[in-house]
Amino acid sequence: MIKVAILGQGMVATHLAIGIERIKQGEIEPYGVPLAKYKLPYRIEDIDIAVAYDVDVNKIDKSLYEVAKELVGDMLSIPATLKDIYVREGIHLGSLRGLPFKATGLEEKMGLRNAIYKLIDDWKELGVDVIVNVITTEYGKPFHKLELLEKAVSEGNGITASHAYAYAVAMYSKDHRRAGFVNVIPTPLANDDAVVELYRKVGAVVLGDDGATGATPLTADLLEHLAERNRYVKFVVQFNIGGNTDFLALAQPERNLMKEHTKSKIVEDILGYDAPHYIKPTGYLEPLGDKKFVAMHLEYLTFNGLQDEIYVLARINDSPALAGKLVDLIRLAKIAVDRGECGTVYEINAFYMKKPGPLKGRAISKIVSYYKLLEWLGLKAN
Amino acid sequence: MIKVAILGQGMVATHLAIGIERIKQGEIEPYGVPLAKYKLPYRIEDIDIAVAYDVDVNKIDKSLYEVAKELVGDMLSIPATLKDIYVREGIHLGSLRGLPFKATGLEEKMGLRNAIYKLIDDWKELGVDVIVNVITTEYGKPFHKLELLEKAVSEGNGITASHAYAYAVAMYSKDHRRAGFVNVIPTPLANDDAVVELYRKVGAVVLGDDGATGATPLTADLLEHLAERNRYVKFVVQFNIGGNTDFLALAQPERNLMKEHTKSKIVEDILGYDAPHYIKPTGYLEPLGDKKFVAMHLEYLTFNGLQDEIYVLARINDSPALAGKLVDLIRLAKIAVDRGECGTVYEINAFYMKKPGPLKGRAISKIVSYYKLLEWLGLKAN
Amino acid sequence: MIKVAILGQGMVATHLAIGIERIKQGEIEPYGVPLAKYKLPYRIEDIDIAVAYDVDVNKIDKSLYEVAKELVGDMLSIPATLKDIYVREGIHLGSLRGLPFKATGLEEKMGLRNAIYKLIDDWKELGVDVIVNVITTEYGKPFHKLELLEKAVSEGNGITASHAYAYAVAMYSKDHRRAGFVNVIPTPLANDDAVVELYRKVGAVVLGDDGATGATPLTADLLEHLAERNRYVKFVVQFNIGGNTDFLALAQPERNLMKEHTKSKIVEDILGYDAPHYIKPTGYLEPLGDKKFVAMHLEYLTFNGLQDEIYVLARINDSPALAGKLVDLIRLAKIAVDRGECGTVYEINAFYMKKPGPLKGRAISKIVSYYKLLEWLGLKAN
Amino acid sequence: MIKVAILGQGMVATHLAIGIERIKQGEIEPYGVPLAKYKLPYRIEDIDIAVAYDVDVNKIDKSLYEVAKELVGDMLSIPATLKDIYVREGIHLGSLRGLPFKATGLEEKMGLRNAIYKLIDDWKELGVDVIVNVITTEYGKPFHKLELLEKAVSEGNGITASHAYAYAVAMYSKDHRRAGFVNVIPTPLANDDAVVELYRKVGAVVLGDDGATGATPLTADLLEHLAERNRYVKFVVQFNIGGNTDFLALAQPERNLMKEHTKSKIVEDILGYDAPHYIKPTGYLEPLGDKKFVAMHLEYLTFNGLQDEIYVLARINDSPALAGKLVDLIRLAKIAVDRGECGTVYEINAFYMKKPGPLKGRAISKIVSYYKLLEWLGLKAN
Repeated sequence: MIKVAILGQGMVATHLAIGIERIKQGEIEPYGVPLAKYKLPYRIEDIDIAVAYDVDVNKIDKSLYEVAKELVGDMLSIPATLKDIYVREGIHLGSLRGLPFKATGLEEKMGLRNAIYKLIDDWKELGVDVIVNVITTEYGKPFHKLELLEKAVSEGNGITASHAYAYAVAMYSKDHRRAGFVNVIPTPLANDDAVVELYRKVGAVVLGDDGATGATPLTADLLEHLAERNRYVKFVVQFNIGGNTDFLALAQPERNLMKEHTKSKIVEDILGYDAPHYIKPTGYLEPLGDKKFVAMHLEYLTFNGLQDEIYVLARINDSPALAGKLVDLIRLAKIAVDRGECGTVYEINAFYMKKPGPLKGRAISKIVSYYKLLEWLGLKAN
Repeated sequence: MIKVAILGQGMVATHLAIGIERIKQGEIEPYGVPLAKYKLPYRIEDIDIAVAYDVDVNKIDKSLYEVAKELVGDMLSIPATLKDIYVREGIHLGSLRGLPFKATGLEEKMGLRNAIYKLIDDWKELGVDVIVNVITTEYGKPFHKLELLEKAVSEGNGITASHAYAYAVAMYSKDHRRAGFVNVIPTPLANDDAVVELYRKVGAVVLGDDGATGATPLTADLLEHLAERNRYVKFVVQFNIGGNTDFLALAQPERNLMKEHTKSKIVEDILGYDAPHYIKPTGYLEPLGDKKFVAMHLEYLTFNGLQDEIYVLARINDSPALAGKLVDLIRLAKIAVDRGECGTVYEINAFYMKKPGPLKGRAISKIVSYYKLLEWLGLKAN
Repeated sequence: MIKVAILGQGMVATHLAIGIERIKQGEIEPYGVPLAKYKLPYRIEDIDIAVAYDVDVNKIDKSLYEVAKELVGDMLSIPATLKDIYVREGIHLGSLRGLPFKATGLEEKMGLRNAIYKLIDDWKELGVDVIVNVITTEYGKPFHKLELLEKAVSEGNGITASHAYAYAVAMYSKDHRRAGFVNVIPTPLANDDAVVELYRKVGAVVLGDDGATGATPLTADLLEHLAERNRYVKFVVQFNIGGNTDFLALAQPERNLMKEHTKSKIVEDILGYDAPHYIKPTGYLEPLGDKKFVAMHLEYLTFNGLQDEIYVLARINDSPALAGKLVDLIRLAKIAVDRGECGTVYEINAFYMKKPGPLKGRAISKIVSYYKLLEWLGLKAN
Repeated sequence: MIKVAILGQGMVATHLAIGIERIKQGEIEPYGVPLAKYKLPYRIEDIDIAVAYDVDVNKIDKSLYEVAKELVGDMLSIPATLKDIYVREGIHLGSLRGLPFKATGLEEKMGLRNAIYKLIDDWKELGVDVIVNVITTEYGKPFHKLELLEKAVSEGNGITASHAYAYAVAMYSKDHRRAGFVNVIPTPLANDDAVVELYRKVGAVVLGDDGATGATPLTADLLEHLAERNRYVKFVVQFNIGGNTDFLALAQPERNLMKEHTKSKIVEDILGYDAPHYIKPTGYLEPLGDKKFVAMHLEYLTFNGLQDEIYVLARINDSPALAGKLVDLIRLAKIAVDRGECGTVYEINAFYMKKPGPLKGRAISKIVSYYKLLEWLGLKAN
């Protein structure tokens, strides 16, 4: 059994909760869960969501069933078992600022340090093993030095919600139970030396950053395909548009920057040269809902100096793609903790994350990282 | 220096000859040559095309320069050095039957066995190391048993031109100089146990079959991408249309069958289940020329039973893509011969061929095979 | 009230029956019915399907409800009112030959002439106004001369099911009640001078041929767009693949020919020159179901001799598209009969048909024909 | 003979000048010139570019040949006849502000009023008939009232370069020769009641605004296609990215706004309801050059409430598309002046402009406007 706490009960967390229940009930196949066909120490059925946190006043104190009803009630039937899991108030620190939601946070009532210890008490009581961060994309930078992070916690400002949560998990690991923290939003945690050092000290594991779903891994594999054939990429264009809260958030320039940077980096990492590119979340259009539209175009030079063109279009359910990966990441975080890993685990991050921590040289293609992951797990591809 | 004989002086062989010359002259970068950025025992500049064979009466006795002028003179400037290489009459055995070309073959004048020894004499005189088969797609089946192949050679019928050429290379290897035979058309040679056994006996190397260019490797890598994420592919559609001789040939149902089989096999090989698919060369349209149009579409199930859709479109120069791979294959064939390999080499075939010989279980994705190839070469990815 | 008899209770007829009922019940908007927003002498609610005919033994004597349950029961809820309409045995004449259905026809028991009068008796009894032909695409050629058509009826062979039905409607019109015949399959009826002459004589109206749905009208309008800007189209490629019975039928070369001809003709008609093109139903793939996949590509020369490229992809519900047009065609056929039209009506055919009868010069773009249709109806665009 | 003055010697004007020369010399067909196949009072060969104006110091005092060499010298051979036409300094008024060009304007030396009369003197001397405005997209609003426009001219500020040029043409028409002004950039001139009133008074003709090229007319015709079939459009997405100066300019939010507004308006105008849409120039990527990439996606409801999807991709040479239309617009402006038209001419604007003046109700589809234009010209479609 893996006890899980969710941070941010939005679309991703909702799909995660529903999907796990439906798999437990034998209603659906575990499609979209990369390692579902392999035998891991923990089964999907071992995952138990114990609690969720949010700062949207419309979600706090509601059951996951009620939240799910509102978010995806028109497309999925919601398992009744979600009636027993509740959303509690989390840490805000302005992470929803500027978005059309009324938000509140524990730290506003009791100060940040008390808020953190309030969460730790919850987790101790529930026996939480893994904490998953899926709050809305926020703007944030690394602290680099641990003392700066600790200072920000003390002062209760100059710190993102994600960093505060990460700090809480570290303290929880130090004082009570070694835990895993899975960060699938862009805020740099596994890429922040300050955070990684802290986790190494307390014997906890942080996985991150920015879950690799949607078009970026596909672009990465496509570029790898071309690189292996020594085709010279003249340019890459990739548009993304969607209608969920994350795309709405990304319409704010500061938040958008968080994504653009990640998405752009893969070009040079994989090709070995910085082919001109335009790769960013492009817009928000409500009726697209959670099923985003991606359009990609690139030109390359082939043998004898001739030019080829490729176009890729996709409609992709954004949240389920990430939720499917969380089903693995939760299990991998627990396995890493069980194995005594401390800090972060590049072999896991490399396949699941857009910006795999720790901070280092160039990224590798997803397909290569997949085989490295299997190796780390002692599995053979089948 | 690697001395090369070309079988079939069509678009691919023409791009190969031009491209190598332009690289030698420093006119173009070796884009489209997968291993160009690695240090191999032979450089691209070491390749020397010594002779070419064809059965089209409009090409026989012409220089490669004249042939090139006709085929690509409107899009490329033809290096003058090609004026010194000539097209000789090859073996026909009906390989151009039904196509709008006047064809003739050595065997029509002197019988098959003498024709084969005529070629061997040529090669001995020129010191040929590697023979490359790029004749037009023909219909052909494996012999499976060596004695059946030998019987067909003796009788001079019931044998494809490709098999006859392969037999000639084997005899050349036995009697004069161990050579490599590179088969990039669909006729099963590296997939014919009869051929592989013969090559093992005489100490020669056959690489094949059906050079992996265009849409099939891209489809393979895309399917691998989905398989690694455990997405369930509901169906795959892939259309191909072009205006070169190969597409004209594939408009004949028998020849088309040769391609359809290869292209379809990758689906089950990579996914592990035979997702319904329609993958075949679809048509011929003259103004598309050598730059074919590929359209692909697939649907898959993601987490929580939801459905995503992907579309891929491409305009791809068909012949240069294959020519670029031949630049590697010629060098790899020579390296394999130098290393004392006999029969065929799966590590090479797996990356470069649609139907990598020898006959065996399932294919692997191109990206995986790329890393296995580097390993075989003792190289590290960069 | 317009009493309708349906020939061929397949997907199109099923969507037609369901859609009309749902519109009557206020359940859905009349989307996909071109003239829904205009005031015509007959409302959609005035359409009353009285009877259907089929030759598939699995459909004969079943209610439209039962047939619908089988065909679209997984995607739509079927109105209970369809329980009162039954499928009767129709005329076969080999129209399902070679397809995986067990078929039977009235003519096999009683001869063709008696079969025809059996139908006429039905229609007289039910007071039928309009007969709609939506049987599976069959191979058929025009008779050109009326006496040849009459001879074929007499002899009971050398005649398609569609021609036999058309003859029945003519006799019904002559003896009992002037009726309209709507032919939306490719068999040439409104394009057969023999048929048009017969209808003119008996005072009936035949509309046809080959309902314009899916990609062809879109291609037509796209070509018109280019023609109006004097862009020179270098080539047009259009692939179509689907998983319904019609695509299965079109996998038979003879039937395919019926479509290819129609689809190809529009290129020259609209552009004024026969740009090289490959436009045909390309394949059958079961999981696509009724929602076909269309891929189109064209290149053209723009000002200063430069080249542009366009790609169009679509997933289109095949049968509903045609069903929506039938909702208009049934009403227009009745209006034409009411107005005393005899023979066929080009103004209607031009917008709704791929091969608008009568036989004549070049087709016009759909957008132009739309405005001509409104004119014929005395309506103003809004 | 039509004497023409060009305002803004960028890519469009350069393609215009080259294309007209090549047509005169019989080197190319007049593809991309909508009315080329019709007989108009003026032939393409009657167009004579007499002078050009620009504010980029790198262009002023150069010949059109030199400018063309720089802009398109790598893709086209430049006619020597362009050596005789020179670029003179124009009016700046900040129209290039913020872009990476060094700019200067006549008004900076002599004040706006004198600058205007300097231009008028030029035109009088050269006998100019038609003035074409193709300066870089600038931000600008209508004056609505003529006295406000006149006041801005007097004060020499609060006025766009386009308005100043329009005013100059009006004064030239009043004092010397009735002329036509063709505005193909978004600044509202034919849509500014102040300008139209002024032109009506002086007997001049202004055509505009914002030349309809690229994706917008295609989107318009696609929407018209759907509207005629009463399909309900759920949303429309349209991305545009290019690498020419205009896309660079549009990366500035203020200038972008000018385009977004125009592009969005067509949705409601054609469909009759404001389907949710995201239609805007999306980005700048240098290697795309003048051949922009457009990606469009829409979903609609068809009959029986089912959903279809369409995707359109295109690579379009941006400047030649507009240049081809200018070949008509120059002739139409002269024809309108000859016919004694005053103010603006909706019948011309409706087909050629994205925002056809004068200010009025809803736009019409391009295809409809095409037939209205032919009517205005007394021509019959062929």
